[in-house]
Amino acid sequence: MEFSLIDRIRQRTAQGRDDVRLGIGDDAALLAMPPGQELAVAIDTMVEGVHFPIGTAAVDLGWKALAVNLSDLAAMGATPAWALLALTLPNADAAFVDGFADGFAQLAQAYRLALVGGDTTRGTLTISVAVHGFVPPGKALTRAGAQVGDVVLVTGTLGDAAGGLQLVQRGGRSDAQASYLIQRIHRPTPRVAAGLALRGHASACIDVSDGLLADLGHICTSSHVGAEIEAALLPRSSALLDLFDDATSCDFALSGGDDYELCFTVPPQHVASVQTDLARLGCGAARIGRIVEGRGVNVRDREGRQLELVHQGWDHFGA
Amino acid sequence: MEFSLIDRIRQRTAQGRDDVRLGIGDDAALLAMPPGQELAVAIDTMVEGVHFPIGTAAVDLGWKALAVNLSDLAAMGATPAWALLALTLPNADAAFVDGFADGFAQLAQAYRLALVGGDTTRGTLTISVAVHGFVPPGKALTRAGAQVGDVVLVTGTLGDAAGGLQLVQRGGRSDAQASYLIQRIHRPTPRVAAGLALRGHASACIDVSDGLLADLGHICTSSHVGAEIEAALLPRSSALLDLFDDATSCDFALSGGDDYELCFTVPPQHVASVQTDLARLGCGAARIGRIVEGRGVNVRDREGRQLELVHQGWDHFGA
Repeated sequence: MEFSLIDRIRQRTAQGRDDVRLGIGDDAALLAMPPGQELAVAIDTMVEGVHFPIGTAAVDLGWKALAVNLSDLAAMGATPAWALLALTLPNADAAFVDGFADGFAQLAQAYRLALVGGDTTRGTLTISVAVHGFVPPGKALTRAGAQVGDVVLVTGTLGDAAGGLQLVQRGGRSDAQASYLIQRIHRPTPRVAAGLALRGHASACIDVSDGLLADLGHICTSSHVGAEIEAALLPRSSALLDLFDDATSCDFALSGGDDYELCFTVPPQHVASVQTDLARLGCGAARIGRIVEGRGVNVRDREGRQLELVHQGWDHFGA
Repeated sequence: MEFSLIDRIRQRTAQGRDDVRLGIGDDAALLAMPPGQELAVAIDTMVEGVHFPIGTAAVDLGWKALAVNLSDLAAMGATPAWALLALTLPNADAAFVDGFADGFAQLAQAYRLALVGGDTTRGTLTISVAVHGFVPPGKALTRAGAQVGDVVLVTGTLGDAAGGLQLVQRGGRSDAQASYLIQRIHRPTPRVAAGLALRGHASACIDVSDGLLADLGHICTSSHVGAEIEAALLPRSSALLDLFDDATSCDFALSGGDDYELCFTVPPQHVASVQTDLARLGCGAARIGRIVEGRGVNVRDREGRQLELVHQGWDHFGA
């Protein structure tokens, strides 16, 4: 462990957690679990040129590397607590590390999350973060509980990150709407509070990292059900609708990755109260379809016809 | 998370742990901590061409990626329990993944360690593993407890991995002694049982990953003490002594990384019983010096002269 690099991040993240009995600087950290909770753990990696464009600002990478992991905790309904960071860098660039640390710490501080371990190595820019959170036994949201008849909902809006990515690749635009979509790639908001609010209400939950079709497909597989989605109901931002035509924005909303919204299922009688709760949290929750018998995800257009789908989402090694 | 690749590993690792409430396949794993224990966590990354030569066998990489992390738990006196794996690969190579899985699983099974989460991505071959273990509160071994007058010991033998690396780089030899040293690079043995046996006896402990001087130096820094090492006491294998001259093998033992032995300090009155315990575990423990006032590590030769040291150990970003 190279202390100087990790220390720059540690100094910016929470020091005050009394459950961190021994933090960075020894062979392992020592952590105290709150009694009566289960530990939720996840790990995610971002590679330059694969998960983010070469030249992405360090401050955005620091934020996003943590955000995509917090999104996994959000999808489980877990409260974030601790993180580990493995950062591989082409060279010891203090400005990069400081920027990365700033972005990481901005998000970590919002959750009083402590960085408790890290490793920096030399190589292609690659960032792995492992996160740890707490959830009461039996209360976690999983992908496996969706029931036929449940309503499918998503937080926020879908397709923004895919639209933003296309704008970045095209280059040129820098107005407020373009900036909004691009920000959605670089600074995704993990829906932690929404995940906590869904505990005890959602029958299944996942975060939309690979695209709605792929991720709702995981719920269907795990729950042994199918889903029917209505394209007209997909929540899309005004920026996306203004900058792209209906078919494109719909494709982005169905198949674009990197939105980090939550897709979840709720028994019909609880939908109204869940929507009220999530509106109060600021992200809202839109009904987009329902769980049916069968398997896989079908999408219907405004006339009720089943759409032919080209993209089923993002897979780093192909289908 | 790409299920097919991670699944190949998961299928080979422990399924029977009842503390894994929800394993691989959801957004996060759910784990139950044993009551009255603290959680020890560490993360380490290995990059092709930096931490291992290009062309290293996949089975060795799988073993070693876990071994270097278990070594961190060993140095804390923690019992291994769970691991997360982030594997970045240039392409979806089933033979590589199977080999990697075999090596990882061989070592995991020895400790009933469960792989509870993973992520595979495309890029330069990079492996990050995070490990989790248990230790009773207040019983962990740290780097910070060494006292003036304590004896410095190491398990096993030092310098073998550095010797093996030189043999690999030279090419050619394939006799039993060369194979032994090369095996010590590729299949390090984490000293988990030794670490557990040292709880309550060692005043400080670290694993020798960066080289004895660097790692004992970390104990000195954390404990606000110095150390004096006698070169003649450095435990060296017969293979190392047969294949390299005394000065070279001594340099390897002092500065070579990757041995993953434990270096620890013990009050004089407990040395004999500790040595008996560790002899019973098969690795043994050699006295190599003592803790003194001051700072840093000094090395004395057979005549009591202080050695001039060129290398202070391994640092991926230079001094």
